[in-house]
Amino acid sequence: MPQLGDNKWGKSAVRVSKVVGGSGADTFLDVDVQVLLTGDVEAAYFDGDNSAVLPTDTTKNTIYALARDHLTGDLEGFVRRLAEHMIAKEGIWTASATVRARRWERHTSTGFVGGGPERRIARVSLGAESDETVAGIEGLVVLKTTGSAFTGFPHDEYTTLPEAEDRLLSTSISASWGYEPCPDDTTATWETVRGLLLERFFEDWSASVQHQGWQMAESVLSEVPEIASITFSLPNQHHLAVDLARFGLSGSPAVFQPVSEPYGDIRFTVER
Amino acid sequence: MPQLGDNKWGKSAVRVSKVVGGSGADTFLDVDVQVLLTGDVEAAYFDGDNSAVLPTDTTKNTIYALARDHLTGDLEGFVRRLAEHMIAKEGIWTASATVRARRWERHTSTGFVGGGPERRIARVSLGAESDETVAGIEGLVVLKTTGSAFTGFPHDEYTTLPEAEDRLLSTSISASWGYEPCPDDTTATWETVRGLLLERFFEDWSASVQHQGWQMAESVLSEVPEIASITFSLPNQHHLAVDLARFGLSGSPAVFQPVSEPYGDIRFTVER
Amino acid sequence: MPQLGDNKWGKSAVRVSKVVGGSGADTFLDVDVQVLLTGDVEAAYFDGDNSAVLPTDTTKNTIYALARDHLTGDLEGFVRRLAEHMIAKEGIWTASATVRARRWERHTSTGFVGGGPERRIARVSLGAESDETVAGIEGLVVLKTTGSAFTGFPHDEYTTLPEAEDRLLSTSISASWGYEPCPDDTTATWETVRGLLLERFFEDWSASVQHQGWQMAESVLSEVPEIASITFSLPNQHHLAVDLARFGLSGSPAVFQPVSEPYGDIRFTVER
Amino acid sequence: MPQLGDNKWGKSAVRVSKVVGGSGADTFLDVDVQVLLTGDVEAAYFDGDNSAVLPTDTTKNTIYALARDHLTGDLEGFVRRLAEHMIAKEGIWTASATVRARRWERHTSTGFVGGGPERRIARVSLGAESDETVAGIEGLVVLKTTGSAFTGFPHDEYTTLPEAEDRLLSTSISASWGYEPCPDDTTATWETVRGLLLERFFEDWSASVQHQGWQMAESVLSEVPEIASITFSLPNQHHLAVDLARFGLSGSPAVFQPVSEPYGDIRFTVER
Repeated sequence: MPQLGDNKWGKSAVRVSKVVGGSGADTFLDVDVQVLLTGDVEAAYFDGDNSAVLPTDTTKNTIYALARDHLTGDLEGFVRRLAEHMIAKEGIWTASATVRARRWERHTSTGFVGGGPERRIARVSLGAESDETVAGIEGLVVLKTTGSAFTGFPHDEYTTLPEAEDRLLSTSISASWGYEPCPDDTTATWETVRGLLLERFFEDWSASVQHQGWQMAESVLSEVPEIASITFSLPNQHHLAVDLARFGLSGSPAVFQPVSEPYGDIRFTVER
Repeated sequence: MPQLGDNKWGKSAVRVSKVVGGSGADTFLDVDVQVLLTGDVEAAYFDGDNSAVLPTDTTKNTIYALARDHLTGDLEGFVRRLAEHMIAKEGIWTASATVRARRWERHTSTGFVGGGPERRIARVSLGAESDETVAGIEGLVVLKTTGSAFTGFPHDEYTTLPEAEDRLLSTSISASWGYEPCPDDTTATWETVRGLLLERFFEDWSASVQHQGWQMAESVLSEVPEIASITFSLPNQHHLAVDLARFGLSGSPAVFQPVSEPYGDIRFTVER
Repeated sequence: MPQLGDNKWGKSAVRVSKVVGGSGADTFLDVDVQVLLTGDVEAAYFDGDNSAVLPTDTTKNTIYALARDHLTGDLEGFVRRLAEHMIAKEGIWTASATVRARRWERHTSTGFVGGGPERRIARVSLGAESDETVAGIEGLVVLKTTGSAFTGFPHDEYTTLPEAEDRLLSTSISASWGYEPCPDDTTATWETVRGLLLERFFEDWSASVQHQGWQMAESVLSEVPEIASITFSLPNQHHLAVDLARFGLSGSPAVFQPVSEPYGDIRFTVER
Repeated sequence: MPQLGDNKWGKSAVRVSKVVGGSGADTFLDVDVQVLLTGDVEAAYFDGDNSAVLPTDTTKNTIYALARDHLTGDLEGFVRRLAEHMIAKEGIWTASATVRARRWERHTSTGFVGGGPERRIARVSLGAESDETVAGIEGLVVLKTTGSAFTGFPHDEYTTLPEAEDRLLSTSISASWGYEPCPDDTTATWETVRGLLLERFFEDWSASVQHQGWQMAESVLSEVPEIASITFSLPNQHHLAVDLARFGLSGSPAVFQPVSEPYGDIRFTVER
């Protein structure tokens, strides 16, 4: 008769984000959490008896619920709270809770730049009768906790999105622009564009991703005369509010689930 | 004054899966969908007027809703239906709908093996007083449309998971096992283990991932005398039922949203 | 004074491929190898004394050299040989060698299909005056051990590539094609195209990737009347021959290093 | 008879790095380059005649050779030089050269921190008789252009690595450490550890990765009394010098090929 050896179960890759408002400056927390348990579950393996198997779905919900009040910069305190909650349950022997926090660099009181694989791009295309210089940026990840809305959109039979007067907005900016002529100092010009993109994203209130992008494009075209046109890809990287009412909790402070897919896909070109 | 050039918006990476029951054999469809639109949305860019901006969230919901009745093996037919739905709306000029279907190889009438980056593993560790041979498999992705349940689990204040008498189950099998002694034909032995893992996953009814894994482990230990113990990692790769009632549709046929994260994380060792 | 605890060193992710010719059918092995050592290396940590630190570069070379004669389908035998080689060295206490083999499915006696994330694509784009249906395939990974050459190319001051009368060729086929009109059975048509791509890749001798692709395109356009044009992306996924002469070994059997980057980038469209 | 439509060929994902010494501070450039050509190559498609097909291997070599003198912060200037070189050749009609530069943040005059997906980690594991708090960091990518050596290592029949008195060193620091007891301000303590890791990496000369890591570990244990032990994983992310002599060029300034795989794999624990 085989023996059950070491075993554990739980939920991994539970993504959670949260804004912690402070005096004058928000803190933004963006983590993924894993909780692994051991316990009195031999019967689940042998006989299909789940009476001691805390569903991993419940573990996920517990992470969301406890994040509401306990997820702060003291990450060790948060995972301690999670592990304590778990081992208080009958039939749970040990609990290991791990959190991995993404590093966002503060840019303004409510604006952050995320350490993504940012790239500067340059392209020259030549032919007998063609000569084109394009510069660009990829992977400039930005997030603001306020200063963005999305209201007044059309409704149809499949619309469930609520109007949002003020929402968290995050995107990974990709932009490319043609030079006519190519500036003398391409590095300085590129840094100017990068600075304008960040300034406009963080300082301008926007009614949509499109509206936000238009203001960035206008600013770049206005400030850098060598740029003839600029093309943007601005994926809306959604942070979905978790429904805390299911756990008898109010929705404030909000707990978000960041999702990689699907994403809103917004692309456009602005020309002089 | 800058001019708005080419522009489009929509939703990308909308993952959808669906079981199409047939006479004696299920078909399993697993796709991601992108819908991109152009339309009368200059005012959104210039003035923040969203009255013509169909929310990308609505596009996502539309994909789910139309998948219920129209997602079949005729993928071109499905994306045509989506594009037609979109251009019938006021203010939408063009619609481009793309679907990318993952290739699942049929294994049984309700069982499928997914083309993942499957690997065979071998490890030998030697020292003055140690000699260990371990074999393994990684990335054996399997899915069955029926023959799995999860009921009778404990409930607490954060439990929202419904009981499931019959559910779709998918995992990416990773397993490693120690040889004592190492068999003469390691390739044939490895193929035997791989075959047993598939046979048990597809043929055995299971009450949980743990229960499913136990039956696989028992079979391997019973059939291959050189294996002293086997360790599994069986992530539960969830396919979440989309709530179609929000669109006035019944939940049958079901439409699922496959999610990469979070995932149920089940790991265990079985010894002789 | 701090104490050095558990420690090890070695080389990871050493990719090796090899053709094992047999009676009538080649076997293709494609693995990555890791070798980790422990030994008498405290002085390296404390004093920067490397006299016992076998360079990880030497470990890499050892993997290549031993692969020449010992890498076969008996993966456990190969890693045992590697570990034995390492622990025979003075100052090495333990060695752990791990190999992970990619699963290639045999298609012909010298042709293989690799388990990649293959996808079927369908796209419909509609507008007031436009109606376009495109189908495609992505990630169809193929490799043949013979039947491909590359000779007669121009030379300049930077040319170092030798002429190859017979080489191993591998690519990940991406192709998309427009339908005019869309066929009644889109799935059957797609399977026909996929079959033709494989048949031509494995059966036709080619003088270059371009020549190989042309023959695939010609066949598809000839056999499927609904296809108006087809566009290919055929990255040349290089397997570089390791210079075994540095170790006093002849170059036969060859040992290859598969590289992910850079890759030859070949793209083209063929129209009726 | 089918017609050849749009087509191009070239090399993609050619990784190149280079140190540009300046007055008092090095600049480090780390790019990937793509060059795509069109030209008089119909005969290659139709007849397997390669007389006009510039090998993509030659394109790769050209990128390395021209990088030696022309890769500077003026990326647009570099890709222009590449494209001009290509269209000067007979039978080449157009050339498009693209460069994507990774963003490294200067930390010292010769030290840089790379924008990777850096993470802060916290883990608490509880049981009836166990209580463990672990903190950590993942993905702290660092590179220094000088201040690292690797000499005096053992030689055997497979050794080809030359001794290096001064080399470029890059790694992605992963470290985890146990707290006994957990500090009051976990965030401040984590920032202290991160600062020490960077300070020691950039300021200490090292005889090997092991020696470098030991100095980091010693410093952390010395400065942070709550840390009982620390475990490191320090993959050696190699930048291989390109052999420029093949093109009749001296090796200074050096041009490097950064490689993702294989990598030197160094792991160790240091305890009080």
